[in-house]
Amino acid sequence: MRIVDLICRKRDGGELTPEEVAAIVLGYTRDEIPDYQMSAWLMAVLLRGMNRRELAALTGAMLRSGESLDFSDLPAPKVDKHSTGGVGDKTSLILAPLVAAAGLYVPMISGRGLGHSGGTLDKLESIPGFNVNLTLAEFRRVLAQCHCGLIGQTPEIAPADKKIYALRDVSGTVESPNLICASIMSKKLAEGIDALVLDVKTGSGAFMKREEDAAHLAGLMVETGRQMGKKVVALITDMNQPLGRKVGNALEIEECVEVLRGGGPEDLRELSLLLAGWMLYLGGQAASVNAGKTLAAEMIANGRGAGKFREIIRLQGGDPGVVDDPKRLPQAKNRVDVTSASAGFITAVECRQLGIASCVLGGGREKKEDRIDPAVGFVAHKRIGDQVEKSEPLCTIHYNSAARLEEARALIEQSFSIAPQPPAKLPALVHRVLE
Amino acid sequence: MRIVDLICRKRDGGELTPEEVAAIVLGYTRDEIPDYQMSAWLMAVLLRGMNRRELAALTGAMLRSGESLDFSDLPAPKVDKHSTGGVGDKTSLILAPLVAAAGLYVPMISGRGLGHSGGTLDKLESIPGFNVNLTLAEFRRVLAQCHCGLIGQTPEIAPADKKIYALRDVSGTVESPNLICASIMSKKLAEGIDALVLDVKTGSGAFMKREEDAAHLAGLMVETGRQMGKKVVALITDMNQPLGRKVGNALEIEECVEVLRGGGPEDLRELSLLLAGWMLYLGGQAASVNAGKTLAAEMIANGRGAGKFREIIRLQGGDPGVVDDPKRLPQAKNRVDVTSASAGFITAVECRQLGIASCVLGGGREKKEDRIDPAVGFVAHKRIGDQVEKSEPLCTIHYNSAARLEEARALIEQSFSIAPQPPAKLPALVHRVLE
Repeated sequence: MRIVDLICRKRDGGELTPEEVAAIVLGYTRDEIPDYQMSAWLMAVLLRGMNRRELAALTGAMLRSGESLDFSDLPAPKVDKHSTGGVGDKTSLILAPLVAAAGLYVPMISGRGLGHSGGTLDKLESIPGFNVNLTLAEFRRVLAQCHCGLIGQTPEIAPADKKIYALRDVSGTVESPNLICASIMSKKLAEGIDALVLDVKTGSGAFMKREEDAAHLAGLMVETGRQMGKKVVALITDMNQPLGRKVGNALEIEECVEVLRGGGPEDLRELSLLLAGWMLYLGGQAASVNAGKTLAAEMIANGRGAGKFREIIRLQGGDPGVVDDPKRLPQAKNRVDVTSASAGFITAVECRQLGIASCVLGGGREKKEDRIDPAVGFVAHKRIGDQVEKSEPLCTIHYNSAARLEEARALIEQSFSIAPQPPAKLPALVHRVLE
Repeated sequence: MRIVDLICRKRDGGELTPEEVAAIVLGYTRDEIPDYQMSAWLMAVLLRGMNRRELAALTGAMLRSGESLDFSDLPAPKVDKHSTGGVGDKTSLILAPLVAAAGLYVPMISGRGLGHSGGTLDKLESIPGFNVNLTLAEFRRVLAQCHCGLIGQTPEIAPADKKIYALRDVSGTVESPNLICASIMSKKLAEGIDALVLDVKTGSGAFMKREEDAAHLAGLMVETGRQMGKKVVALITDMNQPLGRKVGNALEIEECVEVLRGGGPEDLRELSLLLAGWMLYLGGQAASVNAGKTLAAEMIANGRGAGKFREIIRLQGGDPGVVDDPKRLPQAKNRVDVTSASAGFITAVECRQLGIASCVLGGGREKKEDRIDPAVGFVAHKRIGDQVEKSEPLCTIHYNSAARLEEARALIEQSFSIAPQPPAKLPALVHRVLE
């Protein structure tokens, strides 16, 4: 079997056997297949697609390229959530403590910010001292002790994905639902979990702008996960505007703490409880999703969620005091309001542009090597449908570098569409659920 | 402009500007664009296609990656022919001397055998002493002196094509009409010619099996050549069986000499005269294609074509005596007949398989490093439509290695389809002409 023949078969719309797909993934991981053949094959996959058998083989081969964690000795089900990413999308740091407090295990391996979207690891690192780089042995110890651990990808987990992703990034082969599905699922399935809740974002701030694209990807991931014997559900949720009010790493931790302490914005609280409800239901800790939501809400009301967050932070080397006093988080030196140029109603938000504004302020990376400024970001005061007066603040920018302010301010100003009439319809928080 | 953005644009079916296409070609030639990005782009081009403006830009950039020869000081038009390749396809070595003898210049840069097809350079090298590796200065001198030169691609001509072709070969991106067109035309347009006749083969022994594919490629090449200001015509000709009777390097030289001396098989003679007629017409040496054919036939009858071939061979270091005594060409030690297993009519020939049989005998390469045995090959005694008796010879194999004989013999035996009734229709020599 020559790799060129496999490239040509996929190029011409043919099917590869599971063994052939596995040979490509493992050959590439072992440096036996050169980058230029792999990128041609990835482009052929992107343009010709894969059937379900090929996708399962791809995901399985990427999973088996590294270690799979085994937490079967821990005495309760393990569940996780994965989001495809967006702006202000911080639910992980709310639902992980809530679900862990309610008795399940949450072994969560997260990523960093990508493009305009924030990353869980970057947010966690805004907590002074917090260490996301645990070894797998440390991860296991933290998980066993407090039912939750929050780390980044380790070299042992799906090395094929790491190598393939780096090549996709520079060869124009990122935007393939099959390749995205295999990348996400190979990592998540390596976590040793029993159930997975997928939060697939759609809208102006999501990677999948169109709901049908989000639903297509969600369908692939649900089916792939089930073929691997996991309970999987996908929620298609709204990313036409930031989730919650606060965007930026420390600002988002602050808002998570608000929710865990019983406050916070309605949309963030609602989605966090819903996702936690699904995790608790799939993990067998609640008889229904609604019962799971109720249980998660109890974990807020009785303070055990916030307590669990303190415990996780402490075990991973961070300052648990931030849960009680968010002022211990990094604070930007300056604040300035972006005000409305006219009176009317917010009819739309260029959500992706708002995410880029946060990156421009220093909250995200343009290059892999860039250092993040944890303190910067913005607080949005208005949402789609809200009425505004002329000169009323739309956003408050938190910034450290005046040099970066103007570009960010312009991006934010241009992001809000204001019209004399309110929009006909507000975006639904949850567009649909794929069970 | 980032190369990834250009890959993505082509991937998504968008158009690249001529400047963008040129930047890709030159960036790759200068090693600024890595193989893995180029192969992804080539795959996107193969699957998404190019419009005429992009194709012209690609061809032009590949042409300008190296030197263009300038023979404008030579006092007659320069013409050439290019064939897409087949089995027994040896017309170049007949028409080049004929057209040169008739007064035009033929600066012919040829290739080697590829896959199952023979190559003009390999055939020429079966003439003892013949040197195809002239420098450009030597090429010019030979051309000026005898109106014809026959060499291989030099490092100065279209280096981009050389590098891109090597990558296509190992990345599954050979079979793209646009990429094939740009590869052929960039080299031919660098030859400093005024007119070009394209012989695009179709049928079981051609790279383009289906006539519509051959016509599509022919159309691209004709238009690309005209956009560059050249007179170009394409003939779609038959490759459902070998051209002429003899296949193998020295055997094909022998058959060319037969035609130049007034004999040879009808199909080879007819196609050579037709192609020469087109060259003489496009080069202004004849008032019509038919007048050109008549002029070429005169060059056979008056012996000047054979004389020109002797002159070319002598100027390029070879033994001109082979024109008068083909036994001076390398001779295989052994001959054996392949006979018909039944009586009937030849209804079809697996022409590609016959070409592979010649390679198996040693007449072609499996790997780039393989040495060619110039003496081996076969002489076909039967053509499509011919009647055969049981046990009558279909072919005579010329071989040196008994170890290779059996595989070749089996391939040849299986290549002939014999049925009780003659085929309803014989393949036309020329399927169509694109002027």
